Amino acid sequence: MAKYIDMDNLKFILHEVLNVESLCELPRYKDFDKESFDLLLDSTKTYADNELFPVHREMDADPARYEDGKIIVHPMVGKLMTDAGANGTIGATFDYDDGGMQLPNTIYVANGHIASSANNHVTGYTGLTHGAAHLIVSFGEQVLKDTYVPNMLAGKWAGTMCLTEPQAGSSLSDITTSAKLNEDGSYDIKGQKIFISGGDHEYSENFIHLVMARMEGAPAGIKGVSLFVVPKLRIKDDGSLEANNVDTVGDFQKMGQRGYCTTHLAFGEKGSSKGWLVGPPNRGLACMFQMMNGARIDVGCTAASIATAAYHASLQYAKERPQGRRILSGGAKNIEAEQTTIINHPDVRRMLLLQKAITEGAVALIMQASLYHDLSVAGSEDERERYHDLLELLTPMVKTYPSEKGQESINNGLQIFGGYGFCTEFPLEQFYRDIRITSLYEGTTGIQSLDLLGRKVIMKNGATMKEFTKEIISVIKAADNYDELKPYALHLKNASKTLEETLMHLLQFAMSGNHERYIADANIFMELMSTVTIAWQWLKMATVAKTALVTGKTTYSTTFYEEKIHTMKFFFKYELTKISSLSETLKHPDTLTIAEENKAVFA
Amino acid sequence: MAKYIDMDNLKFILHEVLNVESLCELPRYKDFDKESFDLLLDSTKTYADNELFPVHREMDADPARYEDGKIIVHPMVGKLMTDAGANGTIGATFDYDDGGMQLPNTIYVANGHIASSANNHVTGYTGLTHGAAHLIVSFGEQVLKDTYVPNMLAGKWAGTMCLTEPQAGSSLSDITTSAKLNEDGSYDIKGQKIFISGGDHEYSENFIHLVMARMEGAPAGIKGVSLFVVPKLRIKDDGSLEANNVDTVGDFQKMGQRGYCTTHLAFGEKGSSKGWLVGPPNRGLACMFQMMNGARIDVGCTAASIATAAYHASLQYAKERPQGRRILSGGAKNIEAEQTTIINHPDVRRMLLLQKAITEGAVALIMQASLYHDLSVAGSEDERERYHDLLELLTPMVKTYPSEKGQESINNGLQIFGGYGFCTEFPLEQFYRDIRITSLYEGTTGIQSLDLLGRKVIMKNGATMKEFTKEIISVIKAADNYDELKPYALHLKNASKTLEETLMHLLQFAMSGNHERYIADANIFMELMSTVTIAWQWLKMATVAKTALVTGKTTYSTTFYEEKIHTMKFFFKYELTKISSLSETLKHPDTLTIAEENKAVFA
Repeated sequence: MAKYIDMDNLKFILHEVLNVESLCELPRYKDFDKESFDLLLDSTKTYADNELFPVHREMDADPARYEDGKIIVHPMVGKLMTDAGANGTIGATFDYDDGGMQLPNTIYVANGHIASSANNHVTGYTGLTHGAAHLIVSFGEQVLKDTYVPNMLAGKWAGTMCLTEPQAGSSLSDITTSAKLNEDGSYDIKGQKIFISGGDHEYSENFIHLVMARMEGAPAGIKGVSLFVVPKLRIKDDGSLEANNVDTVGDFQKMGQRGYCTTHLAFGEKGSSKGWLVGPPNRGLACMFQMMNGARIDVGCTAASIATAAYHASLQYAKERPQGRRILSGGAKNIEAEQTTIINHPDVRRMLLLQKAITEGAVALIMQASLYHDLSVAGSEDERERYHDLLELLTPMVKTYPSEKGQESINNGLQIFGGYGFCTEFPLEQFYRDIRITSLYEGTTGIQSLDLLGRKVIMKNGATMKEFTKEIISVIKAADNYDELKPYALHLKNASKTLEETLMHLLQFAMSGNHERYIADANIFMELMSTVTIAWQWLKMATVAKTALVTGKTTYSTTFYEEKIHTMKFFFKYELTKISSLSETLKHPDTLTIAEENKAVFA
Repeated sequence: MAKYIDMDNLKFILHEVLNVESLCELPRYKDFDKESFDLLLDSTKTYADNELFPVHREMDADPARYEDGKIIVHPMVGKLMTDAGANGTIGATFDYDDGGMQLPNTIYVANGHIASSANNHVTGYTGLTHGAAHLIVSFGEQVLKDTYVPNMLAGKWAGTMCLTEPQAGSSLSDITTSAKLNEDGSYDIKGQKIFISGGDHEYSENFIHLVMARMEGAPAGIKGVSLFVVPKLRIKDDGSLEANNVDTVGDFQKMGQRGYCTTHLAFGEKGSSKGWLVGPPNRGLACMFQMMNGARIDVGCTAASIATAAYHASLQYAKERPQGRRILSGGAKNIEAEQTTIINHPDVRRMLLLQKAITEGAVALIMQASLYHDLSVAGSEDERERYHDLLELLTPMVKTYPSEKGQESINNGLQIFGGYGFCTEFPLEQFYRDIRITSLYEGTTGIQSLDLLGRKVIMKNGATMKEFTKEIISVIKAADNYDELKPYALHLKNASKTLEETLMHLLQFAMSGNHERYIADANIFMELMSTVTIAWQWLKMATVAKTALVTGKTTYSTTFYEEKIHTMKFFFKYELTKISSLSETLKHPDTLTIAEENKAVFA
């Protein structure tokens, strides 16, 4: 079978870089240890090998679709839900009291990375069910928990999140789905929701939709939006199920991730769709953000996973494909020699190293953020807030960097295949199509960038940003212990200063009230800051690798650690260098994209 | 009908920027004038509106394919060949004596841009026929011209170029297709050719393949490769056609450009495939380069055209789609206000301006190169060589910039559509797939970059590069006449210096014999140099626009000219700034991608 993930890399990040087993010293995670983590990871890998990877290509060729009023999906969807329910994956991170096993989020996400690398078309089905159940557990009344969560965790019922409406995509303020209070405390939900992933199919007995809607008389805007649980089938007093008038009226055919159904749902059109409030009235967004933040990390993880699978496919191809000859001294080629495999061409190595730098850097960041998550939930009381804030700061980058740069990574992988990369007989073109959704759903890159610059970097008057800088500095200090790493430590130090100075420059606009100017180039700022962030992760990995080589305490081959240091250098030469130009753009005096100041343009 | 091209922009570039009608002063083009050029362009636009654009989407949905030994294509392929034959398009640039109308290449390419913007799945069929016929006209003996060219120009017979073999993609040195001399002077051709665009279908009576093959006893490598014309059906003495044992044995199903068939041909397997030598023995590549250079410009033009159509689709969507509200002073939004159309959001404007900057910059470069082509063919005797050399220098960038940056442009266009961009009901996902081939065929970006850095910039000991710099300086001088443009003139001057210094830095490696190091980052150099090149084109356009506004000699709206200046500024702020980082990478001391120096990596 083709390699789609390097388990050594994942375990290196978890154990040697993040020391994830230190979580087991915390009361919440005391029943785990390194061995039980590895056992889980390895069994996920076996399942992914045997079940998920083999159907990845056919799920693309025979996509999920709407036919005769029904959504048709691949049978693997049903098998995965059943298996995940049976082995406790769906609610693994939940409290024991809520039917979970109190698994650290970091291991849960690592498992997701393995599964999504094998097959990114199926992991959303269980992921959304996890998220929806978690939302009910966190904010729902006991009766809602009892009614829905057990069947969801058992993989019998599926969960979804219903935000988008035809007239309101990114603008959740403009949601018009209505909720009318009934005498029994339930609400009649009426409206249309689009782009609902995993919204319907024959393999789940029931669908538990978490729906954003507006109560009668609620204030305009996002402050009038509440959250409701709206099942496809409602539960009668005798426990039997009856239709709740949630109709699947169509689907969306997509360029990629075609095995993951995307549905159009109509609530309350043919009769009453009953829903029940989750969390306080008009506070739907605050509740939903819990699920959205999780989903954003999942999307980042999915993107990194698709790019990881693509990297291994192109690495294998580059090692096997003969083509051309080395360019020798003076520019000559020895035409009598056998063709070399293409991995020996500098440009192919550049593309492979770029893939390695992006994908492994992205995975490191995702795991770092997940560790912060665990520490914010179960760390020592006085540190929880700090880790929570760091997670908040990282989240838009965790979502965006793997999505945007993962596309670039796969693009380079496809290029390594030459013309074959464009053909359907090789998997790269599928990965290229699959990943393209990740910079769109759960908030586009534009939305994530507004979140990063407009909210996150200014959290607590910049205190969170300072904590983030401290994390970077501690890595710089550790790297500074090794002569080989000193130049890169200095490079990151300067990069961190560039980030800070650029942000200060932009903040002048915000402070003078010109918020539109402040935020106009948020995307460019995202690119700059996430490049520095990944450089931080790379220097951290390289320092750990160097320490292992120097002390001889190595778990994997010497080459493994040398490649880590090498790839860090690659990232610094080819990627971190970009921030000087990005800063130049951000500081440039021309204001060219603000409509009010440039009325003639696109008039 | 949706807009897919801005004819004003094309005519502005041709007439106001390049003054293409000055060509009509040259003897070769004396029968043309501005009006006849416009008449041709407008009639191409009408044809594209009525015939090509309407079938663009269905050619994707119902792709060209191999069934029962035959290639099935859309009937539009047949209609286009017939119509192009009837109106003289295929051989339009040929000499009168060869059945052409001596149309300047610039206008021919401009027509191709219009047609490819409407439908990029069909223009290759006529384009290859043009190129193959031109090769026979240029290098073939009279009997070959008489036998093949008239039917090709009439659109009855189609042409192809057959280079790639399964074991030899980019490495033409490794071609093994053989050519064995017969007593009658013909050759028996035997071998397999893959990725042959437009290689077979029911709408052309015959296919005239230009095949690279190796004569018995020829030297190893590219110096033993000759060029042959090998028809699908050979012509008997009585004029009737008989099978020439060129068999279509399969096809390639592709991610995009699915209406353009890509075939696998077998020569001489079931009997003798007769071919006739074109040009001198063992000089096949030199001859084929004529067709390849034309094809490379065609590919750049196709890429720019797909990106142009995508730009207009996303511009239209951005003007129509309401979503969200402006961010006002202090970061507030007026939630009571109606939603704004998304074109008013800075990030959407940024993406649109990026598309405009890339696509219009690319079209300007393509037309500039095409004008150099015409001047190299028909200009005053003493200038022909200079223009020939400038064209040689530009060609790899003309192929690569629109391909690589066109992908980025479309990627941004897709993003403007949000989730809809990923769905098949909107055209962006098709454009996104279609364009991806352009950085692969006719020499990948890697190959083009080796050509640029390894051959072109050092042509004639750097004299051509100096001529290129002169062209840039003349634009800087013209811009310097306007206060508004002075800062940008200075920016380009510095950028040109950065290019020069970076090249000098790299040349040290070549001069010390370390050619592999010199060439290792050719792709990064390509990015740097083509960014400077497009900045040159933008400053040129902006200066012409400024002059028109100042003198009042405007053909189009004031907004049109203001947008040109604005987009130049955008390119300089967001794109030209990138070269400082690219130069930093190119000058970085680490050598990380050379296999010999990093044996542990990817071991």
